[in-house]
Amino acid sequence: MTRIILSGCNGKMGRFITSIVDGRDDCEIVAGVDKDTVILSSYPVFSSFSDIKCEADVIIDFSHPSVLNSLLCFVADTNMPAVIATTGFDEKQTALIYEAAEKYPIFFSFNMSLGINLLVDLVKKATDVLADGFDIEIVEAHHNLKIDAPSGTAIMLANAVNEQLDNSYELTYDRHSERKQRPKKEIGMHAIRGGTIVGEHEVIFAGKDEIITLSHSARSKEVFAVGAVKAAIYMAGKEKGLYTMKDVIGNK
Amino acid sequence: MTRIILSGCNGKMGRFITSIVDGRDDCEIVAGVDKDTVILSSYPVFSSFSDIKCEADVIIDFSHPSVLNSLLCFVADTNMPAVIATTGFDEKQTALIYEAAEKYPIFFSFNMSLGINLLVDLVKKATDVLADGFDIEIVEAHHNLKIDAPSGTAIMLANAVNEQLDNSYELTYDRHSERKQRPKKEIGMHAIRGGTIVGEHEVIFAGKDEIITLSHSARSKEVFAVGAVKAAIYMAGKEKGLYTMKDVIGNK
Amino acid sequence: MTRIILSGCNGKMGRFITSIVDGRDDCEIVAGVDKDTVILSSYPVFSSFSDIKCEADVIIDFSHPSVLNSLLCFVADTNMPAVIATTGFDEKQTALIYEAAEKYPIFFSFNMSLGINLLVDLVKKATDVLADGFDIEIVEAHHNLKIDAPSGTAIMLANAVNEQLDNSYELTYDRHSERKQRPKKEIGMHAIRGGTIVGEHEVIFAGKDEIITLSHSARSKEVFAVGAVKAAIYMAGKEKGLYTMKDVIGNK
Amino acid sequence: MTRIILSGCNGKMGRFITSIVDGRDDCEIVAGVDKDTVILSSYPVFSSFSDIKCEADVIIDFSHPSVLNSLLCFVADTNMPAVIATTGFDEKQTALIYEAAEKYPIFFSFNMSLGINLLVDLVKKATDVLADGFDIEIVEAHHNLKIDAPSGTAIMLANAVNEQLDNSYELTYDRHSERKQRPKKEIGMHAIRGGTIVGEHEVIFAGKDEIITLSHSARSKEVFAVGAVKAAIYMAGKEKGLYTMKDVIGNK
Repeated sequence: MTRIILSGCNGKMGRFITSIVDGRDDCEIVAGVDKDTVILSSYPVFSSFSDIKCEADVIIDFSHPSVLNSLLCFVADTNMPAVIATTGFDEKQTALIYEAAEKYPIFFSFNMSLGINLLVDLVKKATDVLADGFDIEIVEAHHNLKIDAPSGTAIMLANAVNEQLDNSYELTYDRHSERKQRPKKEIGMHAIRGGTIVGEHEVIFAGKDEIITLSHSARSKEVFAVGAVKAAIYMAGKEKGLYTMKDVIGNK
Repeated sequence: MTRIILSGCNGKMGRFITSIVDGRDDCEIVAGVDKDTVILSSYPVFSSFSDIKCEADVIIDFSHPSVLNSLLCFVADTNMPAVIATTGFDEKQTALIYEAAEKYPIFFSFNMSLGINLLVDLVKKATDVLADGFDIEIVEAHHNLKIDAPSGTAIMLANAVNEQLDNSYELTYDRHSERKQRPKKEIGMHAIRGGTIVGEHEVIFAGKDEIITLSHSARSKEVFAVGAVKAAIYMAGKEKGLYTMKDVIGNK
Repeated sequence: MTRIILSGCNGKMGRFITSIVDGRDDCEIVAGVDKDTVILSSYPVFSSFSDIKCEADVIIDFSHPSVLNSLLCFVADTNMPAVIATTGFDEKQTALIYEAAEKYPIFFSFNMSLGINLLVDLVKKATDVLADGFDIEIVEAHHNLKIDAPSGTAIMLANAVNEQLDNSYELTYDRHSERKQRPKKEIGMHAIRGGTIVGEHEVIFAGKDEIITLSHSARSKEVFAVGAVKAAIYMAGKEKGLYTMKDVIGNK
Repeated sequence: MTRIILSGCNGKMGRFITSIVDGRDDCEIVAGVDKDTVILSSYPVFSSFSDIKCEADVIIDFSHPSVLNSLLCFVADTNMPAVIATTGFDEKQTALIYEAAEKYPIFFSFNMSLGINLLVDLVKKATDVLADGFDIEIVEAHHNLKIDAPSGTAIMLANAVNEQLDNSYELTYDRHSERKQRPKKEIGMHAIRGGTIVGEHEVIFAGKDEIITLSHSARSKEVFAVGAVKAAIYMAGKEKGLYTMKDVIGNK
C-alpha cells in the first residue's frame, strides 16, 4: 500500500487524483497540501508541507510552479520521492528540478499521460525501421482556446523522431506558400483547432503504397492524473535520480 | 445502351474508361480517338474526330487541352453531348467551354470523382446546420511528388463551406507563428504530404464535445474514370447547357 | 427570449442544461421540476408541475419515464410545447407520446444530439447517390460497461440507410463463421467496446478505389443537453404536431 | 550488389518485384523461373530451376505452392538462401519449410509487408505497457471479394497480443446476440468488407479517457513485393536457419 502526500489536492487535477486513488486498493492519500485547506475527502489538508506529521512513501505535486521551492525543501528534509506533475515551470525552475534529482528521487515528465509516453516510444521504434522509405508527418488537434501551436506534445513527438535521425530533419508548418515537391528530410506539422477537443496526436509514416499511423486521443484531463498515480506507485522506495514516464513504461 | 466515343482512348485514363465500360451492360464504346491509333480493345481508333462515321450518343474527352478546339468543332457539327474530363485548361480555354455550353450539351466538373462531388454537397448541408457552434477544419493528404498545396479539391471544399457562410470566413495555413486563440471565422487548411497517397480529403466540424467528420479517400486515379462514365450515361440525350457532377448526383 | 421549464433539473442532464442555458442570451430557465427540490441555480424548483405558477414558452423533460403522465397532463392543461428528451420509455409510453402529439406540440427524437441527427440526414443523401456501386458498413464504439450492442444510434443509422433502399438490405453482425464473398445487399454492423468511450459512430461507403466515411464522435453526454436546448428554442410557439431533431436541422 | 533469382517472375507479384528491383541500385535479377517463359524484362526466364547456370546470392519465390518441392531441391543443391513469399501452403508443406530451415537459410513470414511486421512488434510493446487498464480491439477492412474473415493478418495481430497476455484472452466476433458488459479478457475482432479495399488493420487500446490506435493501411499488393526485396537483400550470405520479417526489422 503506497502512502501518498498530495500537493495541490483541492485543485481540479488534485481532485481527479483523489478520485482515482479512491478507486484503487494499492495506494492511499494520507495527507493533502493546498492553499485552500477545506477538507473534501477523507484525508487532512494542510496549508504547508511543514505541518505534515504523518508518514508517507511518496509526494505527488500537481499544484503551481510557485510551490516548487517549498516542495524541494520538503524533499530535502525527508528524502521522500516526489512526482512533479505541475506544468509551466520556467527554465530556472526546470534547472532546479534537475539539480534536485542528483540528490533525491525525482519523477519529472513533460506529459504525464501513460499513453503519450508509450506513443513516443513506439514512434522512435517505427522511425528506426521505416525512416528509409517513409515520409513522416505529425497531426495534432486541440480545443479552440489553446493559444500555442503546435502543442508541446507534438513537439516532443517531433523531437523523438528527429533524435533517431541524427537531428537532420526540419519541421515544416506551412506548405501553401511555395510550389515544390516534399523534401525527404522534413517533418510536416499540422495543428488542428476546434471545439472542445482535449488532445489528439497522430504520427503518420507514409511510404510506397503503405501507411502506418500511430495515434493517441485524450478524452479528458483526467488521463494526466492516472499517469501521476502510476508514477507515484512506481517511485515509492526509489533511490535518488531523475525518473520519467519512460521508466514507468519500461518497468512493465 | 449508351454509345460512347472516347477521346484519348489510348492514354492511361482512356484505358481505365475502356475497362470500366467493358464491365457494364448499359453502355459501350463505339469509337476511339487518339493521336496513337493502335487498337487495344474491340472498337476502332481514329486519329481525328472527322474520321468517325458511326453513330453515338455521347463523347468522353480525357485527352489533352490541345484537343479542345477539334472536340468543340465536332460537338458543333453533331450537337452530340460531351463530357470534358481533361484537366489543365487555361482561362481562355475554360471560357471557350462555358461559351460552348450555351449552344450544346456540355458536362464539365473540376473533380470527376462522384465521391468528391457528393462530399461537397454533404459539406454544404453540414455547414448550414452546424456553422453556429462548430469550428471547421480541412485536412488533405497527397503523395510526396505533388507540388501544389493545398490541393485544388481542398480549396473547392473550403469554397463550398465559405459560400454557405456569405464568404465571411478566412483560410489559415499556419498557426505556429503566433500565440492566439482560434478566431471563429477561420477555416484551418492542412496539407499532409507523404509516400504515394493518391488523395484523402477530410472536413472536420468540431463543436462542444462533439465532432463530425466527412471524408473521402481515393485509392487510385481510376475513380475519375468511373465518374466520367457515369456522367456520359447521364448526358446522353440532354439538351444544351452546362452540366456538372452535381447534376449527376441530384439526378439520383 | 425563450422561457423554459426544466423537468429533471437536478439530475445530471438537468444540470448540464442549466449550465448551457446560463451561457446563452436567447433563453432562460424560469422554473425547475424535480423530486429533489434543492435549489442549485437561480430558478425555483418544484416537486410537481401543478405548483408552477409562472409563465413559460416551452418545457424540457430530461427526467424519468415515470414522470411522463404528469408531464402530459401539464401539457394538456397549458398547451405548452414539450421537448421530451428522457429515454427508456416502453412501447405503451411511446404510443402515449405519439397520441399526445396529435393534440399538442411535442418534440421527441431517439437521439438528442444535433450532430447525430445531421449524420442521419447526410447518410440518407449519400445512400441515394452511392448505393449502386458502394458497400455500406457501420462501425460504432462505446465504453466497456454498455450492455447492448449495437447501439440504438447505430441501428437508427442502419434503418436510415435501409429506408432509402426499400428495406431490401440485411444487417450482418458476424463474418467469421462462414467463408463467402460479401453479398451486395448487406450492411455490416460492428460494435467496438472499450474503456470509457462516450460514443462514436461511423458509416463507411466503400466503392471502386474510393471510400467515403461519415462519422460522429460524442466526447461527453453534454451534447445531448445542447440538442435539447436547441430543440426548446425551436419549439417555442409551435402548433400541435410531432417534431423531431430533423425539423430543427431542416429549419436552419 | 545482391544477385536475385526470381521464381514466379511472370506472375503479378513477380512483375512488381522486377519493377522494384529495376528502381534500386543495390540488387539485380539475374534469372527468372516461370512456367510461362516469355521474357518481359532484361533477364532470362527458365521453365525449371535446373536450367539456371548463372551465379546468384538469393532466391525469391513468389509463385505457387506446387513449386515448393523443386524450390527446396534447388536450395539443397546450392545452399542458396531463399525468401519464400508464396502463400497458401498446407500444413504439410509448411512443415517441409520449417524442416528445410534446419539445414539451409530460409526466410518465411506470414505477411511480407514491412509495415505489418513492424505493427506486430509495436502492438506487442503496447500490450505489455497497457494491458492492465486498457481494452483491446482489432478492426480490419478488405475488399468485398475476400472470402475469409477475419484476415490472416488480423489473427496474427490477435495472437501477438495474446502471447503477451499468457494466451488468456478470448477472441469475440459478435456482440449483438447477448446483453452483457464487455469481459476484461476479450479481444474484439471486426471484419469490414467493402469495395476494393486492399487491406487495413487497426489495433485499438481503449482505457480511461484515453485511446491509443496503431494502424496499417496497404494501398496496393505491391507492398508485399517491396518486403520480399528487402528480405532478399537481408538474406544474402546468411547461414542456415529460419528467418522472418522480424529479423529484417531488428536488423535496422
